[in-house]
Amino acid sequence: MFTRRDFLRFSTVSAAPSFVTLDDISKQWPGGDSEQKPVRFMGDGPIYSPDQYIAKLGQIKQAAPIESDFYGKGGCVDELTKQFAAITGKEAAIYLASGTLANQLAISVLSGENTKVFVQQTSHVYRDEADAAQSVFGKRLIPLAPDKAYFTLNELQQSIEDHTKGEVFQSGIGAVSIENPVRRCDGQYVPIDDIKQIAAFCRQQGYKLHLDGARLYLASAYSGTSVAEYASYFDTVYISLYKYLGAAGGAVLCGPKSIIDRMEHLAKVHGGVVFMSWANAAMALHHLAGLEDRLKRSVLQARQLFDRLNELPELKIKRIANGTNISTAQLNQSVNAQKLTDNLWQQHKIAWPMAKADGSFKLMVNDSLLNQTNDQLVAALKSAIQTAKA
Amino acid sequence: MFTRRDFLRFSTVSAAPSFVTLDDISKQWPGGDSEQKPVRFMGDGPIYSPDQYIAKLGQIKQAAPIESDFYGKGGCVDELTKQFAAITGKEAAIYLASGTLANQLAISVLSGENTKVFVQQTSHVYRDEADAAQSVFGKRLIPLAPDKAYFTLNELQQSIEDHTKGEVFQSGIGAVSIENPVRRCDGQYVPIDDIKQIAAFCRQQGYKLHLDGARLYLASAYSGTSVAEYASYFDTVYISLYKYLGAAGGAVLCGPKSIIDRMEHLAKVHGGVVFMSWANAAMALHHLAGLEDRLKRSVLQARQLFDRLNELPELKIKRIANGTNISTAQLNQSVNAQKLTDNLWQQHKIAWPMAKADGSFKLMVNDSLLNQTNDQLVAALKSAIQTAKA
Amino acid sequence: MFTRRDFLRFSTVSAAPSFVTLDDISKQWPGGDSEQKPVRFMGDGPIYSPDQYIAKLGQIKQAAPIESDFYGKGGCVDELTKQFAAITGKEAAIYLASGTLANQLAISVLSGENTKVFVQQTSHVYRDEADAAQSVFGKRLIPLAPDKAYFTLNELQQSIEDHTKGEVFQSGIGAVSIENPVRRCDGQYVPIDDIKQIAAFCRQQGYKLHLDGARLYLASAYSGTSVAEYASYFDTVYISLYKYLGAAGGAVLCGPKSIIDRMEHLAKVHGGVVFMSWANAAMALHHLAGLEDRLKRSVLQARQLFDRLNELPELKIKRIANGTNISTAQLNQSVNAQKLTDNLWQQHKIAWPMAKADGSFKLMVNDSLLNQTNDQLVAALKSAIQTAKA
Amino acid sequence: MFTRRDFLRFSTVSAAPSFVTLDDISKQWPGGDSEQKPVRFMGDGPIYSPDQYIAKLGQIKQAAPIESDFYGKGGCVDELTKQFAAITGKEAAIYLASGTLANQLAISVLSGENTKVFVQQTSHVYRDEADAAQSVFGKRLIPLAPDKAYFTLNELQQSIEDHTKGEVFQSGIGAVSIENPVRRCDGQYVPIDDIKQIAAFCRQQGYKLHLDGARLYLASAYSGTSVAEYASYFDTVYISLYKYLGAAGGAVLCGPKSIIDRMEHLAKVHGGVVFMSWANAAMALHHLAGLEDRLKRSVLQARQLFDRLNELPELKIKRIANGTNISTAQLNQSVNAQKLTDNLWQQHKIAWPMAKADGSFKLMVNDSLLNQTNDQLVAALKSAIQTAKA
Repeated sequence: MFTRRDFLRFSTVSAAPSFVTLDDISKQWPGGDSEQKPVRFMGDGPIYSPDQYIAKLGQIKQAAPIESDFYGKGGCVDELTKQFAAITGKEAAIYLASGTLANQLAISVLSGENTKVFVQQTSHVYRDEADAAQSVFGKRLIPLAPDKAYFTLNELQQSIEDHTKGEVFQSGIGAVSIENPVRRCDGQYVPIDDIKQIAAFCRQQGYKLHLDGARLYLASAYSGTSVAEYASYFDTVYISLYKYLGAAGGAVLCGPKSIIDRMEHLAKVHGGVVFMSWANAAMALHHLAGLEDRLKRSVLQARQLFDRLNELPELKIKRIANGTNISTAQLNQSVNAQKLTDNLWQQHKIAWPMAKADGSFKLMVNDSLLNQTNDQLVAALKSAIQTAKA
Repeated sequence: MFTRRDFLRFSTVSAAPSFVTLDDISKQWPGGDSEQKPVRFMGDGPIYSPDQYIAKLGQIKQAAPIESDFYGKGGCVDELTKQFAAITGKEAAIYLASGTLANQLAISVLSGENTKVFVQQTSHVYRDEADAAQSVFGKRLIPLAPDKAYFTLNELQQSIEDHTKGEVFQSGIGAVSIENPVRRCDGQYVPIDDIKQIAAFCRQQGYKLHLDGARLYLASAYSGTSVAEYASYFDTVYISLYKYLGAAGGAVLCGPKSIIDRMEHLAKVHGGVVFMSWANAAMALHHLAGLEDRLKRSVLQARQLFDRLNELPELKIKRIANGTNISTAQLNQSVNAQKLTDNLWQQHKIAWPMAKADGSFKLMVNDSLLNQTNDQLVAALKSAIQTAKA
Repeated sequence: MFTRRDFLRFSTVSAAPSFVTLDDISKQWPGGDSEQKPVRFMGDGPIYSPDQYIAKLGQIKQAAPIESDFYGKGGCVDELTKQFAAITGKEAAIYLASGTLANQLAISVLSGENTKVFVQQTSHVYRDEADAAQSVFGKRLIPLAPDKAYFTLNELQQSIEDHTKGEVFQSGIGAVSIENPVRRCDGQYVPIDDIKQIAAFCRQQGYKLHLDGARLYLASAYSGTSVAEYASYFDTVYISLYKYLGAAGGAVLCGPKSIIDRMEHLAKVHGGVVFMSWANAAMALHHLAGLEDRLKRSVLQARQLFDRLNELPELKIKRIANGTNISTAQLNQSVNAQKLTDNLWQQHKIAWPMAKADGSFKLMVNDSLLNQTNDQLVAALKSAIQTAKA
Repeated sequence: MFTRRDFLRFSTVSAAPSFVTLDDISKQWPGGDSEQKPVRFMGDGPIYSPDQYIAKLGQIKQAAPIESDFYGKGGCVDELTKQFAAITGKEAAIYLASGTLANQLAISVLSGENTKVFVQQTSHVYRDEADAAQSVFGKRLIPLAPDKAYFTLNELQQSIEDHTKGEVFQSGIGAVSIENPVRRCDGQYVPIDDIKQIAAFCRQQGYKLHLDGARLYLASAYSGTSVAEYASYFDTVYISLYKYLGAAGGAVLCGPKSIIDRMEHLAKVHGGVVFMSWANAAMALHHLAGLEDRLKRSVLQARQLFDRLNELPELKIKRIANGTNISTAQLNQSVNAQKLTDNLWQQHKIAWPMAKADGSFKLMVNDSLLNQTNDQLVAALKSAIQTAKA
């Protein structure tokens, strides 16, 4: 029942290989009560099936009562926005129904009356928000650095100059938006030095800077730059609640009070104010606790694991430059990819992406890696590869 | 911690008396496992606290597996939209994050390039959607029948003529929108004959007709006109999922395929596409089953109950003309209102709105009425009134 | 070849009686070279036929060279905006292609992010600009004082309170706009005391105030309040160039530099920047010189004239309360209206509106009145009435 | 008094060399009554000073009476739009105040609900309309063929495919717009074969095609493809009234009745409806008569002239590939550029652009070339060069 389009969409969320249906994902994502806990080399974090979600919410509520919000205000939603404001070092934060809403409203309000907004050509804002910026929010997105994860200060300055000097009727320079890490570039992060230079220039010129940090914790875990430091270079920061925070939806946008205070009204007039969102907030709060530590340990374990797996003649795993949790991998043609994937799941509770016909595939690391030791995982791979060779 | 504004908002949802906080409401809304089930004379239907919500979802999942949606498509969300399309007799239906989004998108798409949209001056679209129609969707709402629940065909025709003949530069006649029942008019419903006349005129003239049926099941239960018949007179119909369907949010919009097919994109560009909404859909599906029957029995029981209560000298309950589940009531000054409300809740599990200083208050009926018999309720009221007199 | 719609439009400009075609008007508006100069009791000022327009431009150019503008800047356009800035006591002024553009941009920019704008129900902005405010500029116009020329401070305050207290989701109070005089109310002006009170309140509250003064000089001439004083109560003032300034189009908007500076870009993106507009500016500059004096003298002469004409048994002319240059008149049924109008034009060069079947009609005064003395005019009327009786 | 910005603007209109002020241009553009008629190697056609404009209008009126329009309808404006509808083979045409308005409205209406619009990166729509498409009309312009005069069908198809396959949330493919000739590419025209291929593809796919033919007559004169044939490949065609038609402003947009019929309202709500525009229409009608013939003869004469001038050792004139009326030229350093320009104007009534320090400059041809014979021009150049060498 799943259309190609659904797959395409899904893959932008979790980079699941194309053979995996949502139903498969759900099956592979048990709540954690089984003896042997699963490890999944797909997705940025937990995506729960309804059963698992309800069970998880039940556990959370057991630990401490969940307080309801009311139209996105009060209760655990306030608790969540307070935490994110503190983490990002911003005056204020607001819960919004979607990342698209968070990005668009932030860029729109930061830009004020100015029309031109500078973004990565590969960014979500530019390619995955259905041209909302141009069709609804009246902004002209100017894409920089085609096919690359980031633009340099020099490229930004060049483009601003081209548009300022090369056009007679000026429409004004609005905000600069940076996605970090960049999902369309296999999760590559933006080098901190480039961010610093761009931020210094923008502050000096009075251009406002937005961070699409949907997966900011991944950038932080792999680059070593803290979430707080990243956030400090930007006026507004958006963080998703469902990439690795387990919620069924939602976003948090952090920034100056004067900016954030305008968001509730804007969300309302765009039809984005939802009656109650405490469930998303409770899930996000729960997964937020200890997240940085879990991701750090996953990064460390993955490095060691991939070194050991690369000793196997049938497998080559390669890190991506400035990469985060995605690695490219190559399976030797002597191994039956389908059998390998099947065996790993059935015998070892390891969700392993199936290689394409040419043997290539992508491995994603998330905190489920901590569910098994590297000894267990290496042993499982060795055994499954042997089985899949026969 | 609750501001005046929150109260105001809340009162538009559930007409809770102003002394009731959200927290009180939650307490008064047990899941139904206690021996004595509560009856609430406030609210249009269940509003669950997080605990109750999680428990309810658990029960629903026990009965039958819940299938996830994906960005508002698939699984139980599809099941819900299919059911509503069938109920309303429309080709298609879509899940949307909010009623405001449903109303605004429907009116906007039905109106096409035409600017003028005719609405009740008392309608949600006109007073409670933050002027989204004018500020985001480019429509001029023309309010008819000030302070009344509905406008007649004559008033509509008069207004169309005034605007067509009285203005030189025409901006085009777009959709006509009718809210039914009207929350700002204590839930009064629109007479079916007026709807029929307006619908016949609009069809003939080519004007599209939208039904803001957020609480349409209430209109149906009290007027005797079926939901299907109401829907048949309109091009599009919006029904809320959280007024009496128990969800934490969400709306369903039904209509012709050519109209509904455009909604997904429009929801996306307005930032209203949420990752997963199966929880709202599952709750709504659960409460939808048998809803019409439960409401019908509630209506009947309420009529008999109010007749019996009106025999008490301390209480006068008065039906509103064309009213639905809200009645005006008057408590004799000899009775201490606070004591009455306290006693009814503590001794009888009856949530009873506290009368104002002048003794007036409003009673709301919902399907929790079925939890106790009229004999029980009358006895409880008698006893509590006596206690509250002392 | 003229459609009903054209007539309707035209009548909003010049209140020509419905039998007059544009061609007739042109014929009745000679350049002034004839021996006997015409007097027209229709129109607010000169509307030239192409021939007359070209001749007039030629005369103007003879007197002093006309300097070209370039996209609405430079040359005599700058001279015009400088004069209007000085006259209205504002920091800056800009030439715009139409009054609709001037009104809409002013209201939009003054309102900023706020949605609600308060206007007279009878105003041009509300009834004659094709709902541009709602469909293009994202504003909700709230009409006050139905069918009246003005609203009082109390009505404004009442409406603001209703919308502030009565709506949960606030969209912000934007600008207040006042048209003065009001064309749809037969040119009635707004009492200066009401303007003062409203202005004081708006300043105190921080609400910006726009004056649609398309025909402001008429208000001034009849009320005795100077254009400068009127302007002093408002943030922005629009004055038309073709009501009594003889241009073929165009508007000037005056206001604070910070507001006016944003207009050029906004005019550009709405497609309203025209290559050259020096002809309109030159005509307006020419007619502006001495205008106040000419109008004052016309007012005086008209009062005396109407008093004398009212002594004739066949004619009753009645001033409108707070009226400007329009008076209502009644022709005795003993006089043939068609003959009277024909005779007056043919024999006396007096353009006289034809009375309707019931004898009623409207007289408009403009500075062509100065072309003949009251003795001449009274004699002409007497003679023509006698002729038209036979 | 002229700012850098004004020059920049001006140069986009007439490619005047940067030392020429608007005032200079005016002086160089006598009405044509002098004995020796001037030839101007700058500008696409006549730009009249106010004096010349008034004189010209007087001549036009002498020849035949000019009939007034009324808000852009009726009289000679109707005559003009009728002629252009016939010339372009379209059902309907409308007068609009500016080319920006014509382009934006056409693209907006042709695209309907679809957001993506494909344009040349060098086009006026993309670079010279202040981002109106994105900020006001809700379109995302996708620029093709950077720095080139045109894109091929293959490039268009590639881009459509990239945006269709490469983006999950589709925003719909709207219109394709082609500017021809391209002002930012020194007037290069788009090869007719590319237009044919693109048109065939667009018709087949249902994509609408707009022609920004501001200077379409130049493309036609130099490419040999008729205006009618160019127009036949497009749904809508815009032609400017002030590039070579002598008007002070204005544009005509031609297309299907269903499209053009919506323009009047849209122009109104964007504030673009001007009271009277007969002067622009009369000027355009006058210059339109015989224009094709005059341009054809200018092209021929210029070719021969440039061949002869290229025999002079001090001058090299080079045609641009697919060029129209602009040629690049090089003056030998032995000649004093200032003296040459001065001498040519003072002695020979030839307006000749002054070469830059490196000797390079651009020559523009227009129908003033016909004012002198090539013998006269060559002799003048020879003489002036000799003088400027001394």
